Amino acid sequence: MKLNIGLVGGTGYTGVELLRLLAQHPNVALRCITSRKDAGTSVVDFFPNLRGHPALDKMVFCTPDEARLTECEVVFFATPHGVAMSQAETLLAADTKIIDLAADFRLQDLAEFERWYKMPHACPHLLKEAVYGLPEVNRDAIRQARIVGNPGCYPTAVQLGFLPLLEAGIVATDTLIADCKSGVSGAGRVAELSKIFPEVTDNFIAYGVAGHRHHPETEQGLRHIAGQPVQLTFTPHLVPMIRGIFATLYATLTDDSVDVQALFEQRYANEPFVDVLPAGRLPETRSVRASNMVRIAVVRRPRGVTVLVVEDNLVKGAAGQAVQNMNLMFGLPETTGLTALPVSP
Amino acid sequence: MKLNIGLVGGTGYTGVELLRLLAQHPNVALRCITSRKDAGTSVVDFFPNLRGHPALDKMVFCTPDEARLTECEVVFFATPHGVAMSQAETLLAADTKIIDLAADFRLQDLAEFERWYKMPHACPHLLKEAVYGLPEVNRDAIRQARIVGNPGCYPTAVQLGFLPLLEAGIVATDTLIADCKSGVSGAGRVAELSKIFPEVTDNFIAYGVAGHRHHPETEQGLRHIAGQPVQLTFTPHLVPMIRGIFATLYATLTDDSVDVQALFEQRYANEPFVDVLPAGRLPETRSVRASNMVRIAVVRRPRGVTVLVVEDNLVKGAAGQAVQNMNLMFGLPETTGLTALPVSP
Amino acid sequence: MKLNIGLVGGTGYTGVELLRLLAQHPNVALRCITSRKDAGTSVVDFFPNLRGHPALDKMVFCTPDEARLTECEVVFFATPHGVAMSQAETLLAADTKIIDLAADFRLQDLAEFERWYKMPHACPHLLKEAVYGLPEVNRDAIRQARIVGNPGCYPTAVQLGFLPLLEAGIVATDTLIADCKSGVSGAGRVAELSKIFPEVTDNFIAYGVAGHRHHPETEQGLRHIAGQPVQLTFTPHLVPMIRGIFATLYATLTDDSVDVQALFEQRYANEPFVDVLPAGRLPETRSVRASNMVRIAVVRRPRGVTVLVVEDNLVKGAAGQAVQNMNLMFGLPETTGLTALPVSP
Amino acid sequence: MKLNIGLVGGTGYTGVELLRLLAQHPNVALRCITSRKDAGTSVVDFFPNLRGHPALDKMVFCTPDEARLTECEVVFFATPHGVAMSQAETLLAADTKIIDLAADFRLQDLAEFERWYKMPHACPHLLKEAVYGLPEVNRDAIRQARIVGNPGCYPTAVQLGFLPLLEAGIVATDTLIADCKSGVSGAGRVAELSKIFPEVTDNFIAYGVAGHRHHPETEQGLRHIAGQPVQLTFTPHLVPMIRGIFATLYATLTDDSVDVQALFEQRYANEPFVDVLPAGRLPETRSVRASNMVRIAVVRRPRGVTVLVVEDNLVKGAAGQAVQNMNLMFGLPETTGLTALPVSP
Repeated sequence: MKLNIGLVGGTGYTGVELLRLLAQHPNVALRCITSRKDAGTSVVDFFPNLRGHPALDKMVFCTPDEARLTECEVVFFATPHGVAMSQAETLLAADTKIIDLAADFRLQDLAEFERWYKMPHACPHLLKEAVYGLPEVNRDAIRQARIVGNPGCYPTAVQLGFLPLLEAGIVATDTLIADCKSGVSGAGRVAELSKIFPEVTDNFIAYGVAGHRHHPETEQGLRHIAGQPVQLTFTPHLVPMIRGIFATLYATLTDDSVDVQALFEQRYANEPFVDVLPAGRLPETRSVRASNMVRIAVVRRPRGVTVLVVEDNLVKGAAGQAVQNMNLMFGLPETTGLTALPVSP
Repeated sequence: MKLNIGLVGGTGYTGVELLRLLAQHPNVALRCITSRKDAGTSVVDFFPNLRGHPALDKMVFCTPDEARLTECEVVFFATPHGVAMSQAETLLAADTKIIDLAADFRLQDLAEFERWYKMPHACPHLLKEAVYGLPEVNRDAIRQARIVGNPGCYPTAVQLGFLPLLEAGIVATDTLIADCKSGVSGAGRVAELSKIFPEVTDNFIAYGVAGHRHHPETEQGLRHIAGQPVQLTFTPHLVPMIRGIFATLYATLTDDSVDVQALFEQRYANEPFVDVLPAGRLPETRSVRASNMVRIAVVRRPRGVTVLVVEDNLVKGAAGQAVQNMNLMFGLPETTGLTALPVSP
Repeated sequence: MKLNIGLVGGTGYTGVELLRLLAQHPNVALRCITSRKDAGTSVVDFFPNLRGHPALDKMVFCTPDEARLTECEVVFFATPHGVAMSQAETLLAADTKIIDLAADFRLQDLAEFERWYKMPHACPHLLKEAVYGLPEVNRDAIRQARIVGNPGCYPTAVQLGFLPLLEAGIVATDTLIADCKSGVSGAGRVAELSKIFPEVTDNFIAYGVAGHRHHPETEQGLRHIAGQPVQLTFTPHLVPMIRGIFATLYATLTDDSVDVQALFEQRYANEPFVDVLPAGRLPETRSVRASNMVRIAVVRRPRGVTVLVVEDNLVKGAAGQAVQNMNLMFGLPETTGLTALPVSP
Repeated sequence: MKLNIGLVGGTGYTGVELLRLLAQHPNVALRCITSRKDAGTSVVDFFPNLRGHPALDKMVFCTPDEARLTECEVVFFATPHGVAMSQAETLLAADTKIIDLAADFRLQDLAEFERWYKMPHACPHLLKEAVYGLPEVNRDAIRQARIVGNPGCYPTAVQLGFLPLLEAGIVATDTLIADCKSGVSGAGRVAELSKIFPEVTDNFIAYGVAGHRHHPETEQGLRHIAGQPVQLTFTPHLVPMIRGIFATLYATLTDDSVDVQALFEQRYANEPFVDVLPAGRLPETRSVRASNMVRIAVVRRPRGVTVLVVEDNLVKGAAGQAVQNMNLMFGLPETTGLTALPVSP
């Protein structure tokens, strides 16, 4: 089986990573890739690492009009926020499914969406139908979904790290802390002064301490998992590295008797992309570089627990999770096209 | 006035940084620098960045025997743990003061010292006399001290970050969290596989989660400041950068009414090396690179406070603070030799 | 078809890269991996990036005695120099082929070998039989070979860059210059002070200017290609990056009339792993990261030509080229297991 | 003596480095710093590393009109090309001297200037008077100069490396090669996509192979030194590091009998900022980090010589050399304000 795929907005880091994964996926026929600004340019002129692949060598960015997206079975949006929701109705009408890697279909609370993304939502009725694409939580719903809101990079790591604790109901939900560190590719492929090499390298900063868009998304997910309100302190930091998120999570145990190592191992025993490390081992971001794997360590301390989570923000935190969702939506084995080993060193 | 200075163990990162600072200090005459292993080698062959300085160009590492340390007014120990305490008695007998950059004179609890450093203490009676060299806390005692235990890099940042809150008594002392990130020079100039470039760069890890030597030192300091027991969760991480510590501190407020920004500004108004950033600004490690300055931001959140602290681990976290202590011990202006501006980019 | 494979010495960067490639190769059954020092240790404890792969999760380093290498069809040596030649006779006697990633079977001149590697050659008669594993030059011989000496990383890049010019006989052979820059993984996974992160990062050095082992190997190859003596000036430099070689090659044209762009394109038209960039484009090392591809640009200048070559030193410069050679030796399609796209960013 | 200083354009890397050096210079009173775009902003809000210095804490960028530059003894231009020449006449008329860190007063050939900088020259008569600010070549002229064209970063390194060989007349002048590698700060503090961290780090590229503005400037200087035409092949590369230029220079010896090590040592014996390394040592960029020092190694090879030069592109390659020129122009000791030791690691 070959799925006909369209990609809207393929000139960012999420886009090139999707191209890399989709070009090597055995059940994908990449039909078109759009970029209003760069229409007419060869894809491999943009991303020379893709040169030499038969499916990409002759591919050219086209305008949205040329793209004939409604002939695709599924369209990925690797665009700024607001694009997917403007095209959703048309695509669904043509039986084309949607996987949005931006935020249009993540936040169910309309006011929250408008507060953080500074635009009204274009299709609230479709938002209601959309499924939040975190397979470890919503696998069955994703299988039936026509629209998937692919999770943000931080929210993926933080939710997977707190998930077993919240499901088991053994931590205080009002003192959760997520001290998160991200590689710079998470900020996108954009020409900003604060992102140029001499500003970032040999340096470490915190940012968005006063408020970050991934905060409400993460709290929504944690609330859903916990079945009750949660209060999360979220501090993002920027690490001088390309890829990778490292989340250090702190929770206060309300029940000291639980073996948290066993709890995590059992919860994730059948998850193909969540690796609970043996007790005493700690994760490192490069151990998941260029892979869809998440690795988690859990450490007991007096009355509390520290959880350490690593993911590749461009893969499990974006393009890889999107492909995982596509596999689920079309009845393919969930790991298809996602089994390449992490690259290290 | 020129102080005669001896340096024991000058081949590590703390050593070369001390050399850099002392060679440019107007009141210092560097008399000798010892290295048992590298005796006879020219200092600038080791550290080519120091070539061309008149006080260093002809300096050669000598053996401890050749060093005639007792003719110095003060001796710095930039050695492994255990060296300073073995020579302390002899030096004091000759009226030579001691600044130890290792841990021999930091922990007052002997059992704690032996547990973490795996050796008995050589001179418990001198330990009692020794002053913990954090000027912002112990300035007057340092002025009178014959032995100063120079603080560790993490403990300096964490104590200065929690200090105003604990002195004011407005945070819970049993739920303090220090999520700390350090540059790699903090691990020393040692040939370890886990420190080679391809293992460290483009990567992020946590380490010492099960226990770190700086934990008891920090708790001792915080307890002293708070005047009551404290419980600190301490998670160190390694950042792919050369210098810099970034400490993200979390505390629960017990008194919501205090203006924490004003509290920090007032507490540090007269401190020459502590810079409280204006509200809304966040610090970055490079803003203190190669300088003795600490910069701090404080951020209110619901029922809690987040404090962000940056320092250069080799300067305020080691060699610079040692020079600051020397200035105090000998009645020099506290900032002498420490006013060079941070290097950025 | 599944080839039974043995790997001798799998704890270095070349070893882990071979594991990554071989574990994903459809025609490979990895039988054993030896490490005298680390026998008994799980492979994934060493290289956590490989966790989760069915062929590797239970694999344990074994001693050479336990390894039963003679039951393999081919054995890779990712060892220090000198190991492969000591086992070659035994393996060949059992019809086991050999691919040596060290230098035992590269230099045909025995005196040269002994001068640079400080040991006598253990089997000069087998050395004579061995084939230098640069497929773009020796493809047919590799197909018939029982022993392949896999080229060094620098020699691969430099030979492929000068090859079309020397074959065409249009450059002076006595003034060739190769100004080469390598990522740090090329120096191996060894605990050396000069390789730790704070010594390497934010820094750039030259090394081996007085003489480097890859110099005679490269000159041997260039001489073979040119059919006459050559004189090469070779300057290696160390770049603060993990992977990648960038070779900037300078040659003086003896025939100005040739279209060098066309020359390169024609010479490499059918080479699956050599990509000649369009005129005006320059290569970057990351465009081949984690891939077996080499990319080359050629630039005319007054009376001379500059050639710019990039490769991943661990793939085309080591493990990938070894797999390419294995494919040739066993009649598999040459690109099998080597088609993964480069990872960028 | 305190010189009244004006700085035009202080928001780039050259600007902040000038601020750092001038603020610590004992004979400087910094009067004003202009930035049309950022007038009204506090300097330390821009560059937090400068916070805490009394001369900078209250300094605010002003408009060119507010600046009263004609009341200064000397004005530095750390601007885009074209600004200094538009103000030169006015300043000279007021007896204000000019040090231009851009290219307005470097190229004496007007056609060459217009070809590379795409603008007509505003004051050719002043260009004729201007002195090229390379003290090792033009010290006496600089002492008398009213206008100094401060050399580019690459030209400084390349000229100092070839200088002794060309003066001695012992190398072929038509086959000079400069393979140069620069840190990223050399490209300026500008928001360009090609300069953001994920594009630059863990990567190595060549650029400007078809032509670079520093090429004619360097050839002009070499021609001046040699007293005859020269032909230089110049290949710039970008290194993932902040500061530093490493120039690897290749020349063919026409006279084999000269001791090049002695030649370099004698030529630079009295130069305060040129350090010829002992035979057998090779330089590294970090050994001059944040310092005005240049370090040079010279290596003989069959019929040729390789020269390796390191400098900090922001100091000896820009701001430091500008201060050195100021010292000369005003009769101050040449090293005033430039003696701080390099920062390493």
